[in-house]
Amino acid sequence: MFEFNITARNQRARTGIFTTPHGDLITPVFAPVGTQATVKTLTPEHLKAINASLVLSNTYHLYLRPGDDLVRDMGGLHKFMQWHRPLLTDSGGFQVFSLARTRKIDDDGVTFKSHIDGSTHRFTPETSIAIQENLGADIIMAFDECSDPNDHAYSRLAMERTHRWAERSLKAKTRPDQALFGIVQGGVLADLRAESAEFSASLDTPGIAIGGLSVGETKEEMHTTLDVVMPLLPENKPRYLMGVGTPEDLIHGVGRGVDIFDCVLPTRLARHHAAFAPEGRLNLMNATFARDERPVDPLCDCYTCMTFTRAYIRHLIVAKELLAGTLISIHNLRALIRLMEEIRGYIAEGIFDEKAPLLLKQWSNNAKRLVHG
Amino acid sequence: MFEFNITARNQRARTGIFTTPHGDLITPVFAPVGTQATVKTLTPEHLKAINASLVLSNTYHLYLRPGDDLVRDMGGLHKFMQWHRPLLTDSGGFQVFSLARTRKIDDDGVTFKSHIDGSTHRFTPETSIAIQENLGADIIMAFDECSDPNDHAYSRLAMERTHRWAERSLKAKTRPDQALFGIVQGGVLADLRAESAEFSASLDTPGIAIGGLSVGETKEEMHTTLDVVMPLLPENKPRYLMGVGTPEDLIHGVGRGVDIFDCVLPTRLARHHAAFAPEGRLNLMNATFARDERPVDPLCDCYTCMTFTRAYIRHLIVAKELLAGTLISIHNLRALIRLMEEIRGYIAEGIFDEKAPLLLKQWSNNAKRLVHG
Repeated sequence: MFEFNITARNQRARTGIFTTPHGDLITPVFAPVGTQATVKTLTPEHLKAINASLVLSNTYHLYLRPGDDLVRDMGGLHKFMQWHRPLLTDSGGFQVFSLARTRKIDDDGVTFKSHIDGSTHRFTPETSIAIQENLGADIIMAFDECSDPNDHAYSRLAMERTHRWAERSLKAKTRPDQALFGIVQGGVLADLRAESAEFSASLDTPGIAIGGLSVGETKEEMHTTLDVVMPLLPENKPRYLMGVGTPEDLIHGVGRGVDIFDCVLPTRLARHHAAFAPEGRLNLMNATFARDERPVDPLCDCYTCMTFTRAYIRHLIVAKELLAGTLISIHNLRALIRLMEEIRGYIAEGIFDEKAPLLLKQWSNNAKRLVHG
Repeated sequence: MFEFNITARNQRARTGIFTTPHGDLITPVFAPVGTQATVKTLTPEHLKAINASLVLSNTYHLYLRPGDDLVRDMGGLHKFMQWHRPLLTDSGGFQVFSLARTRKIDDDGVTFKSHIDGSTHRFTPETSIAIQENLGADIIMAFDECSDPNDHAYSRLAMERTHRWAERSLKAKTRPDQALFGIVQGGVLADLRAESAEFSASLDTPGIAIGGLSVGETKEEMHTTLDVVMPLLPENKPRYLMGVGTPEDLIHGVGRGVDIFDCVLPTRLARHHAAFAPEGRLNLMNATFARDERPVDPLCDCYTCMTFTRAYIRHLIVAKELLAGTLISIHNLRALIRLMEEIRGYIAEGIFDEKAPLLLKQWSNNAKRLVHG
């Protein structure tokens, strides 16, 4: 049911097709994040129009609200949110560690209090898989512990627990129409990462995720970690770099052999009025744009750029009209999805290694927000 | 440039075609309100999909933000908001009286403080027309004073001022591609309304508006007022009942010969989670709908009803996802636009007078919000 066929290679970068019950994923792919069964402010029609193929949703959030049993009873997550292309759910682990209150971790699982109402809950590898089976995404994740990358002493403990939990997750899984990915952890310590990559490679899973990056380490540590991990992973399985990232991170990741990415960045920036643009990341609320008749990006093919001026979007922001967030979200997501389309083209032509430095340069001015246009 | 041809009649109700520079309006028509150059949370594509033909925007708001000179410099309101079908702007009068602070009215105009930043501004018939010419809507309004319907003593004063201001508005107007409508005022006093209707009918305008209703009078007073006013207006000009209204108001209005309506009700209800439904106005946040797999209205053809369940929309509301407002706005607007389509069909068939009581009965349970489904 889950096949991965590599269609082109260029050094360590590759394009491929990952077959899922809801259609083929052409990789490398960037997945918009739909935390609460919706990519914030967008309809599924908007997502189809920007050529989104994979959407991520968060197990922790959906378990708490509306409840995974409700989603199951409503026909599963695809039907509930009316996204009939591939879906991915995380294990809930990361959110428990980053969002929930007063959590207590033991070898069996994690007890935590909901960030919504303070109620007490418990996740174990078995409950995480049961919840993800209720949700019914095409790609699901083993329950893991993501440790602070700067707490080296704790990294081994968290990694070993992640390995034991991966085995329990795999054992708990019952649905044949879901691909369970194990997760490589180990902080930023090369020996732990190597050990975790080898362990994850040994599991019988259709794909492998790399967790614990973009969580506080330096860019160099992220790259070094990927350089250690990627060569140890099997060629014939898709690799998913969780929660990453910026345009530069995507380019670096693809160059190191990553196939799947997700990140809240494009939609989160949109809610803060920031848009990807050729001259850099723009703060569209700035008065500079009050009479700017250009689209956000004159070369972009999204609905926002094909239709509206910066002046209009700036007006919506100043007038506190929610449509601003919708329009910038459409553009920012399309910008990253277009970047992936461009990258796939370069890999297919065998010129990604030549083009990567140019792409990095082109996107480097989007690393931080520009106040002026 | 502005022609109005009546295509069918049924008692006092009629269907017609009003020709504008941005296309024909098929009447009777309901106009969604896009106060700040956007129908809240919707794209122009959403509006086209629900068959919206006329959109109203507010002169007071656009004058303050982003400024009518800016809109003019950006190519006018149609281009700015990318709505290429007919647009209507009000005169700003009503908003000055209902929103602005510490206003001072004299015979020449109104001085007021902005509700946004307290800055002082002045509207006169001449400035209102100049602003509306900068905005460039197809249908524009004479500057008027809407008096409290319960302040009978003041109603004559306000009406007479409205008449003088209508003459000045007409004189100030320069653009041939805009249709200026005079406004019938007079509170709820039959003699004043008759006088105002006759005055408005005497002006050389392509259409006539009826103002000062749905502002605090009783339903019976609204109907009585329309019964006085409508027979005094010329048959061959479209009549626009400003700021009205509820589904019942639309049915009553059409029955009395109204051609154009606008109201914030459908989008305002949507922001408060209320949706028009066959069983009545639903509060979709209610727990009753948590597992309700039906669309909001099983007979509705809008994107929301064709795609999503009540359970999903309820989840979005509870999870504070803005998409809820978008989806309910689409449905509520489509519900009133469909009602107008249905009404036009009945008029064309000559059975509106038979069907009106049934329509009123069908919509009567939408008059107030139901807590339970």
